[in-house]
Amino acid sequence: MRIDIVTIFPQIFEPVLSSSMLGIARQKGAVEFFVHDLRDWTDDRHRTTDDYPFGGGNGMIMKPEPLFRAVRELAAADARAPYVLLTCPQGRRLDQRLVEDLAARDRLLVLCGRYEGVDERVRDVVDLEVSIGDYVLTGGELPALVIVDAVTRLQPGVLASPESAEEESFSWGLLEYPQYTRPASFEGRDVPQVLLSGDHKKIQQWRRLEAIRRTALRRPDLLRTADLTDEERAFAQRVIDEYRNERKEPDRG
Amino acid sequence: MRIDIVTIFPQIFEPVLSSSMLGIARQKGAVEFFVHDLRDWTDDRHRTTDDYPFGGGNGMIMKPEPLFRAVRELAAADARAPYVLLTCPQGRRLDQRLVEDLAARDRLLVLCGRYEGVDERVRDVVDLEVSIGDYVLTGGELPALVIVDAVTRLQPGVLASPESAEEESFSWGLLEYPQYTRPASFEGRDVPQVLLSGDHKKIQQWRRLEAIRRTALRRPDLLRTADLTDEERAFAQRVIDEYRNERKEPDRG
Repeated sequence: MRIDIVTIFPQIFEPVLSSSMLGIARQKGAVEFFVHDLRDWTDDRHRTTDDYPFGGGNGMIMKPEPLFRAVRELAAADARAPYVLLTCPQGRRLDQRLVEDLAARDRLLVLCGRYEGVDERVRDVVDLEVSIGDYVLTGGELPALVIVDAVTRLQPGVLASPESAEEESFSWGLLEYPQYTRPASFEGRDVPQVLLSGDHKKIQQWRRLEAIRRTALRRPDLLRTADLTDEERAFAQRVIDEYRNERKEPDRG
Repeated sequence: MRIDIVTIFPQIFEPVLSSSMLGIARQKGAVEFFVHDLRDWTDDRHRTTDDYPFGGGNGMIMKPEPLFRAVRELAAADARAPYVLLTCPQGRRLDQRLVEDLAARDRLLVLCGRYEGVDERVRDVVDLEVSIGDYVLTGGELPALVIVDAVTRLQPGVLASPESAEEESFSWGLLEYPQYTRPASFEGRDVPQVLLSGDHKKIQQWRRLEAIRRTALRRPDLLRTADLTDEERAFAQRVIDEYRNERKEPDRG
């Protein structure tokens, strides 16, 4: 997979793209990254990429010309047509399903918007606007990196074991079960006995129930779409009811 | 405000923290950043921060000891008690309300989890687990930077005009209206006439309606909580109905 990124802050990308999983994925050849400075497509002495908004208001708006030029030139640079993303708060909210869809493409081109605004006409050369969440950031650089990380780890050969991707929190549609490593006892805090038992069936059952418990307590919205047996669904409901009762009667007992 | 970050990839932070708004905020003294290498709190020759999970499974789990030590030592390093965050997929989902809550604190300490897992006992020294969205990342470094960016831009004196923070997409509870800058005509694409009219009342009305239109089409879930007049709510419903009719009868006319 090839990923091109267009930004006015190219310097922040290289340290991230060469660290950790992204650095390994690139070394393995599972993905190629190309980071471009949008200012290379400006045509004035000051290399201007933004201008005042028509109609007034605070904040500068990214000009259309450099972005149009960048998309056209980069599209022509490779036989693979890029799927063009614009990171912006008005975009489709990123979730793991969208990540999987993007990961299956052979080329992405990510335009990092400044969050104050991008000239509306730029949307004509964009295939999909993406938002990573309902909060306000300064620019689209961190969202671009989030997309790149999520998409790259799904490329074939990137994760040490292919099961890793499937065992993640969101693959059961649940939050992840509690995890423990050594020491078995730390400052009076002990690892649950079942995890030390060596009984793999019991361990699996415990993990599944704890994942359901945690999801019921923290993200009950996820239970609606999670794949649960009737018994598990009843367990989730008991967890929620108990939690509510505890909150209602904090002083009982 | 003081923000401490604990990570096993300290090298990716400095280029981000010194660029753009974050660099300016720091220069102005609105915020202080301290990035720490978790390995400084290990005590073995290999500076080990993770270990195999009890009970088996893929992926390594972050060990409790270095994280406990880091939190205790850093808490003691400043008279202000830190509000300790752990970035992880099981956390409370970040939204602008949570950003505002975090921005009002005088000190944050962000622990960057590896997404494969953090020993459950670490949660005892964490005030809040935060997730930036329902997608799987390799580590908590990008989420930490997202939190830092969103929180820093709300510090007093950081944004050029205080109104900037309030005029953002999410402050009306709506997506942002379309923005345009020069040229007024670009490759046959013209800026809407109203924005060139100089009539500020008309411009404001147009922007409000376009923000409602865009929200109705892209994020109707936001309309439930947005502060709209009855008339505006009826307009939003018309936009949705028209869109549905167009999709139902794509060949009419």
